[in-house]
Amino acid sequence: MQVHESAEPIDLKPVIAEALERRRARATRIGRWEYLRFLNKHRELSEGTAVFGEAVILGYAKIGRILQLRTGLRTQFDAPFWVEEKIDGYNVRIFRQEDELLALTRRGYLCPFTTDRLRDFIDERVFEDHPDLVLCAEVAGPDNPYNEGHPPFIADDIRIYVFDLMRWNRPGCFPYRDKLRLLDAYGLPAVPRFGRFTADDVGPLRELILDLDRQGREGIVLKEDSSRNRRVKYVTGSTNVTDIRSNRDGVRQLPPEYFMHRVLRLALFLEEHGLTATPELHEELGESLVGGILEALQQYREQGRVYHSFRCRFRDKGNARLLMAAMRRRLGKAQVRQRRLERQGDFYVLEFDKVLPRTSDLFSHLLGGGLVFD
Amino acid sequence: MQVHESAEPIDLKPVIAEALERRRARATRIGRWEYLRFLNKHRELSEGTAVFGEAVILGYAKIGRILQLRTGLRTQFDAPFWVEEKIDGYNVRIFRQEDELLALTRRGYLCPFTTDRLRDFIDERVFEDHPDLVLCAEVAGPDNPYNEGHPPFIADDIRIYVFDLMRWNRPGCFPYRDKLRLLDAYGLPAVPRFGRFTADDVGPLRELILDLDRQGREGIVLKEDSSRNRRVKYVTGSTNVTDIRSNRDGVRQLPPEYFMHRVLRLALFLEEHGLTATPELHEELGESLVGGILEALQQYREQGRVYHSFRCRFRDKGNARLLMAAMRRRLGKAQVRQRRLERQGDFYVLEFDKVLPRTSDLFSHLLGGGLVFD
Repeated sequence: MQVHESAEPIDLKPVIAEALERRRARATRIGRWEYLRFLNKHRELSEGTAVFGEAVILGYAKIGRILQLRTGLRTQFDAPFWVEEKIDGYNVRIFRQEDELLALTRRGYLCPFTTDRLRDFIDERVFEDHPDLVLCAEVAGPDNPYNEGHPPFIADDIRIYVFDLMRWNRPGCFPYRDKLRLLDAYGLPAVPRFGRFTADDVGPLRELILDLDRQGREGIVLKEDSSRNRRVKYVTGSTNVTDIRSNRDGVRQLPPEYFMHRVLRLALFLEEHGLTATPELHEELGESLVGGILEALQQYREQGRVYHSFRCRFRDKGNARLLMAAMRRRLGKAQVRQRRLERQGDFYVLEFDKVLPRTSDLFSHLLGGGLVFD
Repeated sequence: MQVHESAEPIDLKPVIAEALERRRARATRIGRWEYLRFLNKHRELSEGTAVFGEAVILGYAKIGRILQLRTGLRTQFDAPFWVEEKIDGYNVRIFRQEDELLALTRRGYLCPFTTDRLRDFIDERVFEDHPDLVLCAEVAGPDNPYNEGHPPFIADDIRIYVFDLMRWNRPGCFPYRDKLRLLDAYGLPAVPRFGRFTADDVGPLRELILDLDRQGREGIVLKEDSSRNRRVKYVTGSTNVTDIRSNRDGVRQLPPEYFMHRVLRLALFLEEHGLTATPELHEELGESLVGGILEALQQYREQGRVYHSFRCRFRDKGNARLLMAAMRRRLGKAQVRQRRLERQGDFYVLEFDKVLPRTSDLFSHLLGGGLVFD
């Protein structure tokens, strides 16, 4: 089939050479794959860009957030826009290389876990017809190696939701209709779509976001139906409390604005939509903040460190080992503890702990009677 | 009377000249007073040091905080220590210059308000006998121009609590007993004192801090009974919630760690003292965080800015005008709004608003539908 993207492939070789010289890109090896990974943005190549020989997989562009629906729609959009669900997972770019499907994380690391599971979710035929295609997708579910939280509608394992398409060596994403045509033609799993709206549709969009809020879902991404293909995201109030709860022991691990931005977003959401901040909501928020630290303190007292436990399932045992090795290399040997790796039905189940070193170090200092100056 | 400090006056002229050259000190003028103020530490002269001709009033040294009582006492002290109440107010240094009593803030600004009120609280005779004396004191109470919160036991106006003594041109504070002798001899208002303890006295100190916690008081400062005169502070759990509540609309004005550090301190306090985090406490904390932002949003919607209102009383109307002028110069003309200045009994009552410009700007951006990237 034919798709109609606007962007043409461009010669990125000079930019890559320059980026290497300035140490914004670095040779990276994971398993049998050697490639270049962009640690920082350099010219048109964003952070997370990966170069596999001739194939330049550009980093997925950051999407700005509005905290007010009504004025945000008016201010950000010049044309109607499509609305899709924002899925609470991690962002990957999926592409083919030497007959293998591979998945890159946001920062451009090859992910042995996602890569292992791609064939369970993605019909490869699309890459026969479009060898230079890049699927931009969210991976979400309780059995993943990165995120604490997951959408309420995924009970087990993971799911993959494609939300954008790119091509090697080309900036930008497919126009929306071209994306739909290709996703439909190959039966690729896509994020839920809610239709096409204009900035006047505040009423229906408010209904939509309040419905998602009640269901504990994360929010929406709005994509302008225009050549500039502008994107904006907007999240529900409840997702802020969920995020705080999911990361509640990371009080030193995550920057303090991680928590305070979410409190601010929650307040703005309540205010705009005329929702009452109930005693139950206050209690839930307070507990999310204090309870996590108390649990982490208990974990530290009992085990001398604070950690998160993860579980995920692999088709190939070697990929589980590769994930552990890659994580140890990236986070430090002592920070990743494998608990279990064993066959269970058609899968190998991996269980491991990821230490929060900064939270652990902070507790060590404070519980030992150390001083802080502030 | 004779006091027995250890430190000798030192010649600070060369250090001051060097600091001026490196722009760590700056000529400052407030009312008829012209002096040098240290914006940053330079050698032995800490931030907030002020130079009035021959008199160098050193900055008050920062006091480190412990977040665990039991281990903190053991780790921080080599000798018994005195325990005093930590008062929730603002720190001043009081001294005499050309027959006038003056008060400097922590950062070395002459405070027209505190200066105006000194004679209501401080018996000047002490300066007749000790012209180079510096009283380090906390000013606290509802009618002050700086702090939102105040101790629960001060119902109106302000009080002044001396907690340390220094002399011009000398580093360090008076030894504890020398301080007591002088405070007693001249009937100076002092911070409440709780006695002399050792690191083994965890039980009594725990009782003391839990008692202060129940009363909503801030905490304690511990001062080692030794030549090194080491100091450490330790606060109650409740003061953290009070602080968050007092500054709850300053979500952008204050750094995010202002709030998150207090959540952490609260959790550590609960954990060490075996206190239960009740639903009421969670609710209070959640409400402190969200409720303040909602109120600030309402204020912004109605008045186009977020501000705090202050009220304080002066003996001399000129000092009220001086405070307003100094604040406008420091914070920007548009950020300080005088609401009222009129005689009431023996006082001039000043009421004014201090805008939180960063919070206001953030709301302007967000409510206008602006984007944020995070």
